[in-house]
Amino acid sequence: MKMYKKRYMNHAIKLAYLGKYTTSPNPNVGCVIVKNNNIVGEGWHIKAGSDHAEINALKMAGHKSNGATAYITMEPCNHYGRTPPCCKELIKSGIKKVIISTLDPNPRISGKGLLELKKNGIIVEIGLLKKKAERINKGFFKRMKKGMPFVQLKLAISIDGKTALANGQSKWITSITSRNDVQKFRMLNDAILSTSKTIISDNSKLIIQKKFFSNRKILISTNKHIRINILQPLRIIIDSKNLITPMYNLFNYKSKIWLIRLKKDNNIWPKYVKQIILNSSNKIIDLVKLMYMIGKTNINNLWVESGASLAGSLIKLKLVDELILYVAPKILGDLSRSSFIIPKIKMISEGYKFKFNDIKYIGSDLRIILTPKH
Amino acid sequence: MKMYKKRYMNHAIKLAYLGKYTTSPNPNVGCVIVKNNNIVGEGWHIKAGSDHAEINALKMAGHKSNGATAYITMEPCNHYGRTPPCCKELIKSGIKKVIISTLDPNPRISGKGLLELKKNGIIVEIGLLKKKAERINKGFFKRMKKGMPFVQLKLAISIDGKTALANGQSKWITSITSRNDVQKFRMLNDAILSTSKTIISDNSKLIIQKKFFSNRKILISTNKHIRINILQPLRIIIDSKNLITPMYNLFNYKSKIWLIRLKKDNNIWPKYVKQIILNSSNKIIDLVKLMYMIGKTNINNLWVESGASLAGSLIKLKLVDELILYVAPKILGDLSRSSFIIPKIKMISEGYKFKFNDIKYIGSDLRIILTPKH
Repeated sequence: MKMYKKRYMNHAIKLAYLGKYTTSPNPNVGCVIVKNNNIVGEGWHIKAGSDHAEINALKMAGHKSNGATAYITMEPCNHYGRTPPCCKELIKSGIKKVIISTLDPNPRISGKGLLELKKNGIIVEIGLLKKKAERINKGFFKRMKKGMPFVQLKLAISIDGKTALANGQSKWITSITSRNDVQKFRMLNDAILSTSKTIISDNSKLIIQKKFFSNRKILISTNKHIRINILQPLRIIIDSKNLITPMYNLFNYKSKIWLIRLKKDNNIWPKYVKQIILNSSNKIIDLVKLMYMIGKTNINNLWVESGASLAGSLIKLKLVDELILYVAPKILGDLSRSSFIIPKIKMISEGYKFKFNDIKYIGSDLRIILTPKH
Repeated sequence: MKMYKKRYMNHAIKLAYLGKYTTSPNPNVGCVIVKNNNIVGEGWHIKAGSDHAEINALKMAGHKSNGATAYITMEPCNHYGRTPPCCKELIKSGIKKVIISTLDPNPRISGKGLLELKKNGIIVEIGLLKKKAERINKGFFKRMKKGMPFVQLKLAISIDGKTALANGQSKWITSITSRNDVQKFRMLNDAILSTSKTIISDNSKLIIQKKFFSNRKILISTNKHIRINILQPLRIIIDSKNLITPMYNLFNYKSKIWLIRLKKDNNIWPKYVKQIILNSSNKIIDLVKLMYMIGKTNINNLWVESGASLAGSLIKLKLVDELILYVAPKILGDLSRSSFIIPKIKMISEGYKFKFNDIKYIGSDLRIILTPKH
C-alpha cells in the first residue's frame, strides 16, 4: 500500500514542478485524485490568482471525487485569498481521504487546513515524501520560515579557482553551454542580485535572453498548453557609492530594477527603476539587512551573479543556501583573481565548509552544486 | 563473431591488470587461449624475469593449444631477454590464430613478433580494443615512444583552488579517504617526484604506508595467489640548492632516493641515496632534461606530489599527462595560496586547457582527473 501511495505522491510532485516558471510568489503545488486505484483527477498550480492545484484536480475528477483520495504536495489553504479556500472545495467534493506531503510553512496559516479537513470527517495523513516535496519550494519554505529568500550563488571559475585574469578579463572562462545553463537558473529565480562593480566591468543586461523566456510552452492542464513569456527576474544591484548611471546596458531592457544605495542620487530614472535606501553605520550595504528586506517582498528565490567580493561576503555571513560553480577545465595561474575575498584564515579548520550535492557535465565544463555545512 | 572476440580480449585485458603492482618496468600483458568457444588457457605477466603472459596461458592449455586461438593484449616478443621468446613457444604449441590488441611500442622490436608468427603460417589479426589495451600500459607506451615517463600530477585543493593557507599550512585540506586514495596511486607508479621545498615544509617520508604495500595478495595464476610486499617507488627530489640533509624523515625509510642537484654536497649519504647532477645554465633544474633522464631508466610511471611552483612549471612545459585533483568542499579564500604558479596570462585563451576525464567522490571530497588538450 505504501508503495502505491509513494507513486501517487511522486506523480503529484512531478505535476507541481510544471508550474516552476510561473507560480511565484506562490508555491508550486500538485494534486492527484485517486479512486479505486485509478487517477481520476490531476492538477497543479500555474499562476498566482488562478486556480490552485486541488481545484484543477477536482474539476477534472468531477463527481468521481466522491469517496476518492486526494494526494496533495502541500497542505490545502483554508482562507480567502485571490481564490476561495481549497479546503471548502475538497469537503464539498465528497473526498474521503487527503494525503498531504508538507504543511504550509507560513506560520500564520500552517495546520489550519489540516484541522478544517479533520473537523469535517476527512481522514488526513501527513508527511509522505516530505523532504522531496519541500525541495520543490525551497525558496518559499526558506522565506516563510526565516524571512529571507533562498540564495543561490553562482560563480564561473577555472579548475584553479580563478574568476578573472589579473587585468579583470573574465569573458569567457566557461563555455556557451554553461552560460545557457545559467539562463535556466535565472528563469527559476525571482530576482538576480549583483553589484555596481560587476555591472561596470561586464555591462551586462542581467536578463533572460529572448530565446529562453519568450513564447515558452507551459502545460496548463493534462494535454493542454499555452505559450507565454516568462517574467524577467527583478534585478537588484548593490550600489553603495551611486556609481550606476542610466547609461548602462542594464537600462536597455525595461523590467524592474532596484538600486540598493545609502542615499538617493539626482538622476532621472525610468519608472521601472527604484532606488532603495538602506541605512548603514559604516558606509557599506548591510547584507543581512538587505536579505531581510528582500524576504519581506514576494521574492522566494534569489540568484546571485557577482565577483569575488560579494561572493566572499555572502559566504562569510553564511547567507548562501547553494553554491553553484561552473568549472572550466583551464588553469589561469596564481596571478589571476581568486573567487572568494574573505578575511585571512589562520587554520585549515577555519575554512568555510560545504557538502557536494550535485555534479554534472555541462558541455566541456563541470557544474558543481554545494550546500553549506553550518 | 566480433562480439565474441571482444569478450575474450576484454578478459585478456582484465588479466593483464592483475600484474599492475608488480610487472614494472615490464608492461602488463594478458593472454587467453580459446578453443571451440571455450577458454582453455589464461595467463598474465606477473614480474620481470618470470614467465610472460603467453607462456603462462600455454602452460595451462597444454595440448589443447593445438588448433586454438590466442588473444594477447600486446604483440608477443621474438627475442631472448630474461626469458625465451614467446613467438617460438606459440608456434611450437600449434596455435592456429593469434589476435593481438597492440603492437609492442618499443621501436627496436615493434612488428617483429607479428612477422615471425605470420612467417610460420599463423593467422594474425591486430588492433582489437587497441585504445583500451594501450591504457593498461600508459607509462610503458609513453616511455617507448617519447623517451619520457607518463606523468601524473597530483594536487589537493579547496573548491576555490587553494593548496595551502597564507602561513603555509596545508595539513589537511582533503580527508583521510582522499589521502588513502593517494596511496593507491603511489603503488601504481614507479617513482614519486617532489621538491626540497615540499620535503622541508611537510617532512614526509613519501612512501607507501605499510598497511597498503606489505603482505599484499597477488594472484599468480587462476585460483592461486602469493603474498608479497609491493616495491616502494623510487623517491626523486629536486634539490637545486642542496637544501636536503640526512636529517629529514625521508631518510628514515631505506629505499632508493635520488637527489637531483646542480652539484654534489659533502654529506655522507646512505647507499640507497644517489646524487644525480644535471648541468644547467641558469641555476635551476631543467625539467625537460630531468624527464628524459628519468625516461632513460626503467621508470614508466611518475607520480608528482609537490607545491604550486613545480606544478606550475610542469604545466607550463606541457610535461603533465594527467592532472589529478583532490578537491575538498571548503573555501579558503583569496589570501590562501594558489595551486599553480605560472607567468601572468593576458588573455583567457592563453590559459592551459584540459579535458575532464574522470570524476569520482572520494569520501567527502571529489577526485577530478584531467588530461591536457595540447
